[in-house]
Amino acid sequence: MERSLAEMVRRLLDREEIVALLHAYCRHVDRLEPERIASLFTDDCILDYGPGMGGTIRGRANLQERMRGLSRFAATSHHVSNIEIAFQSDDRATGTTYVYALHRFPKFPARPDAHLWGRYHDVFVRTADGWRISERVLRIAGQEEFDIEWYPIGRRGSAGVS
Amino acid sequence: MERSLAEMVRRLLDREEIVALLHAYCRHVDRLEPERIASLFTDDCILDYGPGMGGTIRGRANLQERMRGLSRFAATSHHVSNIEIAFQSDDRATGTTYVYALHRFPKFPARPDAHLWGRYHDVFVRTADGWRISERVLRIAGQEEFDIEWYPIGRRGSAGVS
Amino acid sequence: MERSLAEMVRRLLDREEIVALLHAYCRHVDRLEPERIASLFTDDCILDYGPGMGGTIRGRANLQERMRGLSRFAATSHHVSNIEIAFQSDDRATGTTYVYALHRFPKFPARPDAHLWGRYHDVFVRTADGWRISERVLRIAGQEEFDIEWYPIGRRGSAGVS
Repeated sequence: MERSLAEMVRRLLDREEIVALLHAYCRHVDRLEPERIASLFTDDCILDYGPGMGGTIRGRANLQERMRGLSRFAATSHHVSNIEIAFQSDDRATGTTYVYALHRFPKFPARPDAHLWGRYHDVFVRTADGWRISERVLRIAGQEEFDIEWYPIGRRGSAGVS
Repeated sequence: MERSLAEMVRRLLDREEIVALLHAYCRHVDRLEPERIASLFTDDCILDYGPGMGGTIRGRANLQERMRGLSRFAATSHHVSNIEIAFQSDDRATGTTYVYALHRFPKFPARPDAHLWGRYHDVFVRTADGWRISERVLRIAGQEEFDIEWYPIGRRGSAGVS
Repeated sequence: MERSLAEMVRRLLDREEIVALLHAYCRHVDRLEPERIASLFTDDCILDYGPGMGGTIRGRANLQERMRGLSRFAATSHHVSNIEIAFQSDDRATGTTYVYALHRFPKFPARPDAHLWGRYHDVFVRTADGWRISERVLRIAGQEEFDIEWYPIGRRGSAGVS
């Protein structure tokens, strides 16, 4: 019984650490810190933010390089919510997180803010340095002022529901 | 002392299950899964999403039928936050949850996205199958591109503050 | 070991209380309840919502007076997320919280809704009455339809990164 109580608490703490990881991602993106973004992922991570974002990115170094592209925005603001985490084992979990993101462009030439409503589909693994993201796919429910091809969210009867 | 510690942990887990229920609602709505939406509510649930949404819905079967109306959208994205839960007993709780929802219409005829900023006012009960929503009222702080009558959120001095 | 388990649970509960404080702030702002907003802060609180908002506010009484200004809106909706809390001691914590806020103006004269995307940078202290906010600074990532000077969020290479 005591052991099971301790296990429940550890699971709550693991969940909290994964939530912290998701929030740290947004913070580092919005502060334009590519090396800190990359530090939240495993060395051999795989990301796919959609066809219009260049498709699959493999490895932390490539991810860091790609994240430098955020400098084309004047500011971004990534608001995450609806965090759902499921543990496959003590050291591995999957998660889905909603994101609503504002992207502001530099003042010249004038261009309206771009908005995204999507979900991150993640795999998290516990490493010697704590929880890290090992896989991430972004799917999009809607966008404004972006002219990019994304993966759509799945709806019943549509391809890509998973 | 140990018993009280165990109780605190169980309360944290109950809270987490109710939060999971709120997130599952959004997930199933945005994936267009009416039967799964309905499964999150009690058999005798009562919902009221406002006068323009047809008023009171009674029972899981009627709720499921009503949720089929979501198919008129090309996509939706329900982002919930500010989740406040208060336990009346071990098996009953009330909650308020903020929602910001995007609604995209089919491409033809062209129609701008509709947005809603509101709150779900819920009653949760513990059933043999886990926590379920037994009552839900939606109140709206603002809307864009919807031409529907809602219940307003309450502000001091206005009717409907509860 | 048991003591450390109890400590972990207490820390989880403290975290939950601070999150509840952040949500109560939004609820009272959106319900136009200045005295209840003020009750969430310490007597000697210091707030700074930006140069366009009048700069530094000192003390709970001044804060309450300032919050009466919310009555110029027909409705507001403050959606908070990305809550990151770090404990400096058992009785003191700092936190960063993302906010996306809708502000609706009265119908006459017609004026479009104003939107804000920002972060609250807070200091929380445990008082005899529970956790309270003792310091708060608001920084803004973006805005729409506001003509006010704010503190910008910090990005790498820019002043104000902290």
